Amino acid sequence: MNQHKLRAAAALEAAGVVLTPAEREAIEIADLGLGRFEEVGLAVLVYVNTERVCAKELVLLPGQICPEHRHPPVDGDPGKEETFRCRTGIVHLHVEGHDPVTLRPGDQFTIPPDTLHWFQAGPAGAVVSEFSTRSRDEADVFTDPRVVR
Amino acid sequence: MNQHKLRAAAALEAAGVVLTPAEREAIEIADLGLGRFEEVGLAVLVYVNTERVCAKELVLLPGQICPEHRHPPVDGDPGKEETFRCRTGIVHLHVEGHDPVTLRPGDQFTIPPDTLHWFQAGPAGAVVSEFSTRSRDEADVFTDPRVVR
Repeated sequence: MNQHKLRAAAALEAAGVVLTPAEREAIEIADLGLGRFEEVGLAVLVYVNTERVCAKELVLLPGQICPEHRHPPVDGDPGKEETFRCRTGIVHLHVEGHDPVTLRPGDQFTIPPDTLHWFQAGPAGAVVSEFSTRSRDEADVFTDPRVVR
Repeated sequence: MNQHKLRAAAALEAAGVVLTPAEREAIEIADLGLGRFEEVGLAVLVYVNTERVCAKELVLLPGQICPEHRHPPVDGDPGKEETFRCRTGIVHLHVEGHDPVTLRPGDQFTIPPDTLHWFQAGPAGAVVSEFSTRSRDEADVFTDPRVVR
């Protein structure tokens, strides 16, 4: 398991999340094709992703950014709706049409479908639970055309 | 705050869940109208319940039972689909058409819509995360006609 996975697994454990060995292995280290993971990207553990419901943990390094994107309508679905709930650390969340919000442990925010958003961890990184409709990462639309998802 | 809420909040904190003061206050102590909460019932913290997605934490006392029920179709929705993920303790889950399963921390199980199920905590109680489609508690169908939800 590479160092980024180990670090993400350690952050999840520090947040009280118990992982199976298979889940530790399955943590996704997403650099979004930009090759600067420690600055732009995130680690993702998917608990479940059915036709109707998805739940994940997102792990961000100190100051790490998940760049601006939206979840567009797909096949009659209005697009992914997601609620972010901060578990540990701090995350600064920027959502189109809203003032920026800072989420601390226990704080949460629901992002409507097809709405631009991006987020950045505070100086100690962050663990964020995401509760959403089905995830279709390949359908996500990033503002930066260099991003590969 | 009553003793059952305090106990549920303490179990959630022990599971690493950070709650806001308003959330601690909003923990639901559900005795399902049976008046035997320590044996039959559960404590519920709802994080979010939109038209499309719901996420909760369920807290069970040692040996406590959530009695058999199903989530039927409602208004064109096929019924609530829910994934249970054990955070702390042990939970024995009984789902129509499946062998009983014992969930330990890090284990999870997805219950299809409109499928009878019941569950019981092990001797140390349990904290279980539930990721689901919209919750409509009032639509739930319990096998025991004395249950009031």
